[in-house]
Amino acid sequence: MDLDGYFDAFTRRDWQTIEEGRIRVAVIGLGGFARNRALPAIRDGRFCETTVLVSGSPEKAEGVANEFDVERVIGYEEFHAGDASEAYDAVYVATPPAFHEEYAETAARLGKHVLCEKPLATDVSGAERMVEACAEAGVVLMTAYRLRTEPSIRRMREMIADGVIGEPVQVHGGFSSRLLEHAGPDTWRLDPEIAGGGALMDLGVYPLNTARFLLGIDPLAVQATTSSGAVPFDRVEKDVAFQLTFPGGATASCTASFDAHPDSRLQVLGTEGQLLIRAPFGGDVSQELVVERGETHTEYTGAPVDEVREEFDYFAHCILAGGDCETDGEDGLADLRTVEAAYESAETGERIDL
Amino acid sequence: MDLDGYFDAFTRRDWQTIEEGRIRVAVIGLGGFARNRALPAIRDGRFCETTVLVSGSPEKAEGVANEFDVERVIGYEEFHAGDASEAYDAVYVATPPAFHEEYAETAARLGKHVLCEKPLATDVSGAERMVEACAEAGVVLMTAYRLRTEPSIRRMREMIADGVIGEPVQVHGGFSSRLLEHAGPDTWRLDPEIAGGGALMDLGVYPLNTARFLLGIDPLAVQATTSSGAVPFDRVEKDVAFQLTFPGGATASCTASFDAHPDSRLQVLGTEGQLLIRAPFGGDVSQELVVERGETHTEYTGAPVDEVREEFDYFAHCILAGGDCETDGEDGLADLRTVEAAYESAETGERIDL
Repeated sequence: MDLDGYFDAFTRRDWQTIEEGRIRVAVIGLGGFARNRALPAIRDGRFCETTVLVSGSPEKAEGVANEFDVERVIGYEEFHAGDASEAYDAVYVATPPAFHEEYAETAARLGKHVLCEKPLATDVSGAERMVEACAEAGVVLMTAYRLRTEPSIRRMREMIADGVIGEPVQVHGGFSSRLLEHAGPDTWRLDPEIAGGGALMDLGVYPLNTARFLLGIDPLAVQATTSSGAVPFDRVEKDVAFQLTFPGGATASCTASFDAHPDSRLQVLGTEGQLLIRAPFGGDVSQELVVERGETHTEYTGAPVDEVREEFDYFAHCILAGGDCETDGEDGLADLRTVEAAYESAETGERIDL
Repeated sequence: MDLDGYFDAFTRRDWQTIEEGRIRVAVIGLGGFARNRALPAIRDGRFCETTVLVSGSPEKAEGVANEFDVERVIGYEEFHAGDASEAYDAVYVATPPAFHEEYAETAARLGKHVLCEKPLATDVSGAERMVEACAEAGVVLMTAYRLRTEPSIRRMREMIADGVIGEPVQVHGGFSSRLLEHAGPDTWRLDPEIAGGGALMDLGVYPLNTARFLLGIDPLAVQATTSSGAVPFDRVEKDVAFQLTFPGGATASCTASFDAHPDSRLQVLGTEGQLLIRAPFGGDVSQELVVERGETHTEYTGAPVDEVREEFDYFAHCILAGGDCETDGEDGLADLRTVEAAYESAETGERIDL
């Protein structure tokens, strides 16, 4: 099988079918990721523009509005009251997970499409309500898994589907950070009420969602072990190791940690070869994608692509072109079902069927 | 912490305390590993010599005896009868696992030390009897985990013990081969009566034993999933994924497969850094050991060392110098306890405490 077809136009948007159109986005919540990654990505992209900022800190919001040339700034209450709703077509919910539902529901009520950060909600029932509200309103609900528009991951998925590495057998994936180096001990990520969990909810969903996406199937069962630690790591799991079993017998062995050397990696071992990617989950994907088959080792070393820009354009494209949004609310919901089962497995010691 | 101390004399034998001595070895079973790796390693080593071959195929044995200049060749029955026992001090049991016990017990009865291939036996009770027989006879019983004398692994262990990567958090380890490319479908490795199991027994014990060795502690619990396949992979597990939990919360996520792209890798992620080794389990360890700490990436790229030669010399040294043999029968037994628990977990879906 010829690898050139994957490498020659590595960063192509296999999903793009239209050339024109623009979606006006209200960005809700102006945390670090929204300011440093999302707003620049929207600005640099093709199908979106930021027209409204929704924030609880008007002063911070005004500075950001000036930087990104955004006309309207409103508060959370104003958003819920429908203020400025004529000025945007969709919202990007970038608040902590516990607040996703209320903004998504208001947006749906106002007839606005929703791009919502992962995890979709703090639990399955919240995510189910969000999916239902958006379906009833006839608006797109997309879960913001930026990996799904990352060229390295999309090319990996194509190669796997095309049998480049034979049948997938075993996946290893890990994602770790030293949370306290970029957040205080009072960060919402360590508050179970706001985050819904710890390292599994915040980091473990990356290898989880990516494994599901790459294999194109959902897991049948999960086994997991979690551990917490001393303050401030005592309220949620600091570390998690979980193991997914897929139809046909393939497995994914995944880990995540809030307090380890920053690293991310992904290996998909198949009967005939393997795919390895260095640093897939860190935000700036290095695209050091390795394809091994037999005794051949091929490495793609092209420049990184801004996966967040790709993500916003994909979201707008789903609205404009009207096709299926693959990374939809059901997708985020499927992850939360697995996450809840993983917590149950960690608690009971049992393999939990999904 | 200065890394030079580990790298400057990377291949040093930290275990060697004597300079002289020689142990005469009877090699029992002349399969591919014994002929291609063990006999050359003994010849090239410092503290061993092969003086007797024990084989069920006299013709094959004579050719091998000529090649390696071995004086005596006897059959299995002659071995059990004590023939040529004056000509050797120790035995190397290189038969399939189901036959380990009988040779080890005869050797113990004859007062001979035993180096036995892994896994030590096909089940825990067999290994317990071997440990007991050798203890009663006052002979050394060593399990042939060649990784334990591999310089890369020993330096990794020292770095971990010295805190070079902080506290260990998560281990990922995998070992896969395409068994049918170097064995027929009737290989004993696929016969549960002879091998005691499949990919876990033959390959999975490598990441298992190495994780235990590197962390210096034994796991508290194991969760596992196995899958078999179409003939000839229908009698034992073709693939296994297992997850160990260690005291303090560290985990090891391990996989093994009899029918996947040949690969082995090991990652030890710590709070302050990580260690990565490419191809640790394949027999010829490449020694591409990577040490990451903070934003520093250091790679050792020295020439490989024959870990099998190191293993035989370590075994002989244990006998000659009289100290503890770290890779003893209890060590092989501990692995089998974990293996049996992993099979129970795969069967019941429960996390099994050890």
